Amino acid sequence: MWDALWIDIDIATCATPGAYGRIEDAAIGVKDGRIAWIGPRGELPGPVEKLAAVLHQGEQNWVTPALIDCHTHLVYGGQRAGEFEKRLSGVSYADISRAGGGIRATVASTRAASEAELLRSALRRLAPLIAEGVTVVEIKSGYGLDLDTELKMLRVARAIEREAPVEVITTFLGAHAVPPEFEGDADGYIDFVCDEVLPGAVEQGLVDQVDAFCETIAFSPEQVERVYEAAKLFNLPVKLHAEQLSDTGGAELAAAYGALSADHLEYLSPAGVRAMAGAGTVAVLLPGAFYMLGETQAPPVARLRDAGVPIALATDSNPGSSPVTSLLTTMNMGCVLFGLTPVEALAGVTRNAARALGLGDRRGTLEVGKAADFVIWDIEEPAELAYRVGFNPCVDVIRAGVPTLVG
Amino acid sequence: MWDALWIDIDIATCATPGAYGRIEDAAIGVKDGRIAWIGPRGELPGPVEKLAAVLHQGEQNWVTPALIDCHTHLVYGGQRAGEFEKRLSGVSYADISRAGGGIRATVASTRAASEAELLRSALRRLAPLIAEGVTVVEIKSGYGLDLDTELKMLRVARAIEREAPVEVITTFLGAHAVPPEFEGDADGYIDFVCDEVLPGAVEQGLVDQVDAFCETIAFSPEQVERVYEAAKLFNLPVKLHAEQLSDTGGAELAAAYGALSADHLEYLSPAGVRAMAGAGTVAVLLPGAFYMLGETQAPPVARLRDAGVPIALATDSNPGSSPVTSLLTTMNMGCVLFGLTPVEALAGVTRNAARALGLGDRRGTLEVGKAADFVIWDIEEPAELAYRVGFNPCVDVIRAGVPTLVG
Ligand SMILES: [Zn+2]
Ligand SMILES: [Zn+2]
Repeated sequence: MWDALWIDIDIATCATPGAYGRIEDAAIGVKDGRIAWIGPRGELPGPVEKLAAVLHQGEQNWVTPALIDCHTHLVYGGQRAGEFEKRLSGVSYADISRAGGGIRATVASTRAASEAELLRSALRRLAPLIAEGVTVVEIKSGYGLDLDTELKMLRVARAIEREAPVEVITTFLGAHAVPPEFEGDADGYIDFVCDEVLPGAVEQGLVDQVDAFCETIAFSPEQVERVYEAAKLFNLPVKLHAEQLSDTGGAELAAAYGALSADHLEYLSPAGVRAMAGAGTVAVLLPGAFYMLGETQAPPVARLRDAGVPIALATDSNPGSSPVTSLLTTMNMGCVLFGLTPVEALAGVTRNAARALGLGDRRGTLEVGKAADFVIWDIEEPAELAYRVGFNPCVDVIRAGVPTLVG
Repeated sequence: MWDALWIDIDIATCATPGAYGRIEDAAIGVKDGRIAWIGPRGELPGPVEKLAAVLHQGEQNWVTPALIDCHTHLVYGGQRAGEFEKRLSGVSYADISRAGGGIRATVASTRAASEAELLRSALRRLAPLIAEGVTVVEIKSGYGLDLDTELKMLRVARAIEREAPVEVITTFLGAHAVPPEFEGDADGYIDFVCDEVLPGAVEQGLVDQVDAFCETIAFSPEQVERVYEAAKLFNLPVKLHAEQLSDTGGAELAAAYGALSADHLEYLSPAGVRAMAGAGTVAVLLPGAFYMLGETQAPPVARLRDAGVPIALATDSNPGSSPVTSLLTTMNMGCVLFGLTPVEALAGVTRNAARALGLGDRRGTLEVGKAADFVIWDIEEPAELAYRVGFNPCVDVIRAGVPTLVG
């Protein structure tokens, strides 16, 4: 007997690339937190009242896999609305940076913040994502850039998993920027990251994957490669902030290391697309940052699509370039700004977001054996999820087979 | 004695153009639904416990005037997510239109919908706006294009005021598009609008103001002028959908009729700016539609600013070009896409939105004698309201002096 059975629902399984995987008038049986049965209600192996301990009726709402935000910087101190205001009032980015603004401001605030403050502010930003059906969130370090603060950020990310109904994947992003202590000595900082910070974080069980920022204003492919070699010693999967502002060949490097994902990718070259396709590396697109920065060169979506590279979408939630805490709005931006279809946008926050986190075997689609994490939406068709801005049709979020909002 | 007193708050009064009107460590006294006193707490005319029947402590949160969404099409039947999906899959707008899509689809759905259905779906779309602190919303007709349905839409708009904690301003937009019954006879349709529909709606007390869509694909300035003359017979204020896709001189026409506002304005000419400045006509910018349609020509914000034309922002919430139900996201878009400052964005949804609806004498700023409609926000500085996407820091909405969310 199953623990629970949902009927009177339509389902988008996201199990097949390029399609919603519609099952109308469907049913889902759940056992031990996993999907035990899924299909058209008419094919259920018995009368509904005998199949499960609890029967849920879905009022003909749609069900999709729970959402996954696979690229965020949710843990940080301070906020940068004042900087946003200054830029719009005509102050140049260079002047803001000279005055201690930009990422330096966030590093200073994050170093100064207590663990409790960081946890409180991150949970507040996480709340709207949870209300939209997010049950897995990736969270990066990278605003500490010293041993203590990088570990503090990752401890907060782990603590979030205990405080909120989400699974957290932690990503070590020590190679995010060169801190003031190493100004002019990026190589020395990379040594420090590889020899002290990453090993220290790994030792405390705080690291699920390793990321770096490969860009002319950040780290070179050679420096990133040293971080990747250090990650390899610990058998940690890697990913990369790549080709956001220029083509540095980061995607090829990431692909050569079998990276789970390369992220941003506005300036991705055809060679980069081929390398990612060959390695099975997911393209994580971040339209929130593209939008906030007023960029004009969109990632090569048609080329990625044609090459069969899986495309994910994430908020990139961060205080500077993407103060975005809505994955539904991110889906809309993926369609409006990058030309994704609503099918692709939905796959981008479910199926392919799971792959970008190495969770493809147990999450991201609704199939027998996968986690019973799904969302019930009051919509008439799945395209509505990507169509609106500022409207959340989420009725309930089921996590490991248990309703978390309505019950 | 006042009915209520708020202390431990910082206030942005929006009372002065170009500034937040900050009062830190402030107080607001309310009597009979209006502001009886506002200023620094230290200047209160007595001890707080003796001034008012009820004392509210604001925990150092910020207070702004309640928000006003001064241009919406919130009442309609159906939705057009399927059309959004088709366009992203490569189907041309012309093909969608030939297949009965576009505004024709919404007209058909709106005609077919019952009053109860229209009310239910509009209230659902209104809910996220109310949660963001909106207490006044403008709602247009214009998806009926026949006598019965135009009146039905306006009755629903009036009914919303009874069902939700908002004041509704109704706008007659019979001249929105030429309906199928009058295909090829726009002049005949304008006769019908002026002679039958508008008078019918006015007779039933359903019309607060009159709007029209002046565009090569809609109605000419000459046709709009006939609608304005009809409005004049009933002493109704007018406004205009103007210069969205091309410069037809609509803004000059609107200004000549003393219009409350001209809206959209992407193609507004310098002469149009001057005419609006001279007439005191508010420029209502609609960045949601600009964003969803992928437009590239932004309205002439610098020119409007220099000429002293008041700038408002609104969602334009509608099923085709702006399925947007967040005024905070609209403020962000006003900054990111149109280059408004956060000060201008806040004035755009308070002070100037009130003016665009002819409510400037009693709403839109926090001053003695104005309505005690204000929002309490958990933010550190007012710029945060325009900075984030998908985050609602609204703690409570006070309407006519009464807390509506927290109490
Ligand atoms: Zn990032
Ligand atoms: Zn409109």
